[in-house]
Amino acid sequence: RPAVDKEVDFANYFCTYGYLYHQKEMLSDRVRMDAYYNAVFDNAAEHFRGKVVLDVGTGSGILAIWCAQAGAKKVYAVEATKMSEHARELVKANQVEDIVEVIHGSMEDVELPEKVDVIISEWMGYFLLRESMFDSVICARDRWLKPDGMMYPSHARMWLAPIRSGLGEQKKNDFNSAMADWYSFVDETEAHYGVNMGVLTKTFHEEHEKYFLQTSLWNNVHPNQIVGSSVVIEEIDCLTATVDDIRTVTAEFSSSVETDRTHISGFAGWFDVHFRGNAQNPARHEVELTTAPSVDDCTHWGQQVFLLHPPIRACVGDTVHVSFTMSRSKQYHRLMDVEFTTTLHASSGKSLQPRTAKFYIE
Amino acid sequence: RPAVDKEVDFANYFCTYGYLYHQKEMLSDRVRMDAYYNAVFDNAAEHFRGKVVLDVGTGSGILAIWCAQAGAKKVYAVEATKMSEHARELVKANQVEDIVEVIHGSMEDVELPEKVDVIISEWMGYFLLRESMFDSVICARDRWLKPDGMMYPSHARMWLAPIRSGLGEQKKNDFNSAMADWYSFVDETEAHYGVNMGVLTKTFHEEHEKYFLQTSLWNNVHPNQIVGSSVVIEEIDCLTATVDDIRTVTAEFSSSVETDRTHISGFAGWFDVHFRGNAQNPARHEVELTTAPSVDDCTHWGQQVFLLHPPIRACVGDTVHVSFTMSRSKQYHRLMDVEFTTTLHASSGKSLQPRTAKFYIE
Ligand SMILES: Nc1ncnc2c1ncn2[C@@H]1O[C@H](CSCC[C@H](N)C(=O)O)[C@@H](O)[C@H]1O
Ligand SMILES: Nc1ncnc2c1ncn2[C@@H]1O[C@H](CSCC[C@H](N)C(=O)O)[C@@H](O)[C@H]1O
Repeated sequence: RPAVDKEVDFANYFCTYGYLYHQKEMLSDRVRMDAYYNAVFDNAAEHFRGKVVLDVGTGSGILAIWCAQAGAKKVYAVEATKMSEHARELVKANQVEDIVEVIHGSMEDVELPEKVDVIISEWMGYFLLRESMFDSVICARDRWLKPDGMMYPSHARMWLAPIRSGLGEQKKNDFNSAMADWYSFVDETEAHYGVNMGVLTKTFHEEHEKYFLQTSLWNNVHPNQIVGSSVVIEEIDCLTATVDDIRTVTAEFSSSVETDRTHISGFAGWFDVHFRGNAQNPARHEVELTTAPSVDDCTHWGQQVFLLHPPIRACVGDTVHVSFTMSRSKQYHRLMDVEFTTTLHASSGKSLQPRTAKFYIE
Repeated sequence: RPAVDKEVDFANYFCTYGYLYHQKEMLSDRVRMDAYYNAVFDNAAEHFRGKVVLDVGTGSGILAIWCAQAGAKKVYAVEATKMSEHARELVKANQVEDIVEVIHGSMEDVELPEKVDVIISEWMGYFLLRESMFDSVICARDRWLKPDGMMYPSHARMWLAPIRSGLGEQKKNDFNSAMADWYSFVDETEAHYGVNMGVLTKTFHEEHEKYFLQTSLWNNVHPNQIVGSSVVIEEIDCLTATVDDIRTVTAEFSSSVETDRTHISGFAGWFDVHFRGNAQNPARHEVELTTAPSVDDCTHWGQQVFLLHPPIRACVGDTVHVSFTMSRSKQYHRLMDVEFTTTLHASSGKSLQPRTAKFYIE
């Protein structure tokens, strides 16, 4: 019996991918689209011409169609939701139905008639690993990739940087008014209806603290909000990584504060992926897809923001040391629990007490 | 194998009830609270003193605690979510733990040690039947209510009235801009990425028509938006109704237009319930809980609004004739599919062509 029931997983996760609305959001993300487009067409001759390709989670079918246009001999395009029907229509309308075979089903259950040269997939969630879809890519790779096959993308990295942000105060205010509202509710329920709800204050507090203060936020951070050095906390080789490698991400790192008299309101997390081919057959043009804070090249992934309450005052020359852990939520494996232990080492030599904060990526 | 898997039902339906946030929304609805409070305490001597009560879906435990305070001998309070833990705390903090027994579980699975005199429950969803929770109350009644037992509430009715509303135009505009946006998306995807998405236009249109134009809306309708007579389309006797009786609701009715030179933008649907005791032991004070359009007594249920596109022009003296059907969504039994066939009979004797519109209560 799997940890999560397939039907529950459909209700919670896959359902949104069944809507064109959602696929269109991804298809309208220029940074994302350009990266995959360039990766495929700039390396068409070496990596796609005459090759057998597997597209894990084809959605609308876009990547599979590109691979066919780039000269693939055969493309298997697997999609778990009924978006597969639309992928099939799109494949036909774009005259690649002799090459692209759309297969409706979970990657985990699908049987292919042959092994493949290339696995392409756009599997990245918020802060890379939310959704845990890379598990399905790993499963596909271990079952269907030829020994000398390659992964598109081939590498992925996770990044963290300390930021300042006005969102922290805003969330704190939201939390405070929710609590103020609760206290009047308790008073009124007692006065009007003779029931004392005070005993639930602790539960309400916890629930709302989780919601307002401990849930990471989607945000497009402006590069000038970054107040210290950005750090790579995880590197993944898509050809060799196992589910065990990515189930928990831990990192110890230091970031040097680069802005004077600032506040560290929290941390922004993002990722990038690279398309490098493999050792035997490296990419002619290496393409990078980055979701780093940017003025012009924002993506639908934005960044995940983890806010500290209260923020930490810091000066240029200080160092913030962080112990970071991210693991899967026990309740639902596609969501993440995160923990930061943060220590500020001032340039004076003094250090603040370490502070630990828990977050949920929902 | 039941139509819907229990775990899927939890993911889709019960999960929200596990949050105090949501329970508080209901507990802050004064109209709802006053009705149940008065129903229980105004009839305490006849209906609750010394009685055995079952509260189906006790949530925070509020109704069960009131029943105990009103003199019940024993109250079984059944709750499927982990809100049951908080109900237990609340029961204890309000010193009724000797009377109220909180039972964690689905009503359908629970075993009680005895039959009960009264079943109390707040099972009403949007437009009464959304959520299909009354099924669980019927199940409880058929298994656990004594032959001469009573239901709280005892009766329920569904209402419809023609309304005018600015929301129709707004939704139409939203739909039009979504489509305009889609057409530029198709052009750009062809121009930049060499893939023609035009074949998906029909699907996108259908998906967005459903979302913007065919999904009923939650709204607090102002009484002066009602442009014709309000009509009862369904009456339910909670003591005798079966699941088959409520699975499909059909009605043929006419509403006379009472506002001159107006538009029928659509229909508002709402419900009321009554607490009348039973034939052998009628309520001393009959209480009504109505969710009708109101200026001062709005409820968290609001009304469900079904908008016609385009609206129908009408004058005082005209009659709008409606064939109405509501049935359960095939995909998920707690949501509803609705159909209106509307014919305007002008006072001049002329009639417009009947028009049929489908809606989804999501
Ligand atoms: N295990 C699995 N098997 C099949 N499809 C899956 C899957 N896990 C996720 N998916 C699908 O993978 C898609 C990821 S979104 C990316 C869609 C498309 N490749 C594009 O780049 O635009 C979704 O449509 C989702 O339904
Ligand atoms: N079949 C079932 N078994 C047990 N609990 C159920 C149920 N169906 C719905 N519920 C619960 O019924 C509650 C309905 S909301 C009403 C809560 C409370 N009685 C009050 O009046 O404030 C929810 O908490 C929901 O989780």
